[in-house]
Amino acid sequence: MGREIVDNFDLIRSDLSLVEQKLREGAGEMYKPLAEGMLTLLNSGGKRLRPALAMLASRFHTPRAPIEPVVSLAAAVETLHTATLVHDDLVDGAVVRRGRKTLNAIWSGATTVLAGDYLFARAAHFAAETQSTRVVTIFSNTLMTICDGELRQLFGAYDLNQDLDSYYRRIFSKTASLFTASTEAAAVLSGADEDTVFALREYGKNLGMSFQIQDDMLDFMGDEDRMGKPTGSDLRQGIITLPVYYYLQESPRQDEWIEALSRENSDRDDAVDQLVAEIRQSPAIERCRAETDGLAQRAQEALDPLPDIEEKRRLHNLVSSLLDRQY
Amino acid sequence: MGREIVDNFDLIRSDLSLVEQKLREGAGEMYKPLAEGMLTLLNSGGKRLRPALAMLASRFHTPRAPIEPVVSLAAAVETLHTATLVHDDLVDGAVVRRGRKTLNAIWSGATTVLAGDYLFARAAHFAAETQSTRVVTIFSNTLMTICDGELRQLFGAYDLNQDLDSYYRRIFSKTASLFTASTEAAAVLSGADEDTVFALREYGKNLGMSFQIQDDMLDFMGDEDRMGKPTGSDLRQGIITLPVYYYLQESPRQDEWIEALSRENSDRDDAVDQLVAEIRQSPAIERCRAETDGLAQRAQEALDPLPDIEEKRRLHNLVSSLLDRQY
Repeated sequence: MGREIVDNFDLIRSDLSLVEQKLREGAGEMYKPLAEGMLTLLNSGGKRLRPALAMLASRFHTPRAPIEPVVSLAAAVETLHTATLVHDDLVDGAVVRRGRKTLNAIWSGATTVLAGDYLFARAAHFAAETQSTRVVTIFSNTLMTICDGELRQLFGAYDLNQDLDSYYRRIFSKTASLFTASTEAAAVLSGADEDTVFALREYGKNLGMSFQIQDDMLDFMGDEDRMGKPTGSDLRQGIITLPVYYYLQESPRQDEWIEALSRENSDRDDAVDQLVAEIRQSPAIERCRAETDGLAQRAQEALDPLPDIEEKRRLHNLVSSLLDRQY
Repeated sequence: MGREIVDNFDLIRSDLSLVEQKLREGAGEMYKPLAEGMLTLLNSGGKRLRPALAMLASRFHTPRAPIEPVVSLAAAVETLHTATLVHDDLVDGAVVRRGRKTLNAIWSGATTVLAGDYLFARAAHFAAETQSTRVVTIFSNTLMTICDGELRQLFGAYDLNQDLDSYYRRIFSKTASLFTASTEAAAVLSGADEDTVFALREYGKNLGMSFQIQDDMLDFMGDEDRMGKPTGSDLRQGIITLPVYYYLQESPRQDEWIEALSRENSDRDDAVDQLVAEIRQSPAIERCRAETDGLAQRAQEALDPLPDIEEKRRLHNLVSSLLDRQY
């Protein structure tokens, strides 16, 4: 049994509390409904995984650079992540996240759109605070990549004819790109050499890919109560993930499924129920597990060229902790 | 009769065509539905007023700095403007703009949210291309200001108890802030001294305030056919603008109106019809006109300390051209 995810953050506890302060900065002067919405989101129990990645990745250069720009970067990536969740929940019509009501469950769609926009702007503001145009460029390109991925997911709903490459591109866009930006930009701010920047970038990318495939697998295999959603909820929204690809590759009924998912309403829902049940018992799940393990190992190996410091061990362990997630 | 608005852009015609190229850059490699949506928006007949402001404002320093960063800035402010229109039209449920269907009239709300987000990201990418952290900071702060203004407008709908200050703050946020950012950031990129940056900033701010009050007045007085919307459409959406403030200040029936607008549905609609008709014939309109004139003059006077070059005359004339708008 691996350690809890947050146990890997013990080295950077005080840095992360600076990030919490930064995330709440200026809330007192903000328009009140907006400040309330933002604080509700900040207090809803996120693990601050992306800020932690940035903080750990910023410690591979000696002497250590001033911490303020890394705190700004960490606030930028967390705020960007929050902004995308606000708009995603609206787009998906999700009313609960992490056991709490989503903003769109409380506010109108219009207000939720604008609140998300404000958070994007706030994230860009934090990114600009780093005073590094390279970091701002990484940041804005990542935001484009994320939106591109979300749009492809939306337009590709229920389309079983997409190739596997489009799946990998989608999960890089929606998840791994921000992991990558967190570690890469932190390394840049630390003053690390390009080899170190590259190593930390590769770590973030492989960790992010592994994390998302794990998520896509848990969507089929996880505990419904602990996840707070029914199994196969992605497929029920038309999102085609790796377990579906792998299952269909081996299925003699591939054409039947493609036809069934192109139907409308309850006819499609029945097909989805069946498909979810079959995938759960199929070897596709084991294949996904092997793939997350492979990516996790690649993330760990990416760290090999880096000096043997405590932060490296934490990043190493974090990979296993994330793979131990059960929901 | 003043000159047409775009006649003031003759000096910067070739610069503006570089901006058009930049705005379309990379569309061939973009996800196809997204590229199509973006090109539809770009081809929908915007005047490129904000890019033109940036271009003219960038020419008050000798020797002239390289043009590429100013082209990036101009593309950033125009793309930001487009992104806010996409989300505003969605929020307002508007189905026509500039005589064409809006994105939300063609696409689902979900897709429109994400397409707007992509444009915000693209705008941030262009801002980062200027390689100036000061410009990126101006840019991200402006985006926060705009969202803040839109949220205040939404939460303050039909509330006649807001004070006049809240009106000025709102129109600065939603319009004047981006005019200000365009001239200020262009001056910064040109290498101008702080006095020049300040003068051009003040010009942009006063022009933007004058422009929005003019817009708010035209909403009552303009030609319905040419505007493509009914007179008083702001008030019909609950947006309280300067003509309403001025009318109510002089009205003995102020409390009645406040009560009438707090009603629901058709009862409120009838009250709005009456209020629009009364405002159109009231001295409130003339008071607004005097105020736009005053602000326009302040915009022109802000240019006084600047050298007497052709660009200065164009910025000067642009103020009058914008005031001559009839719709």
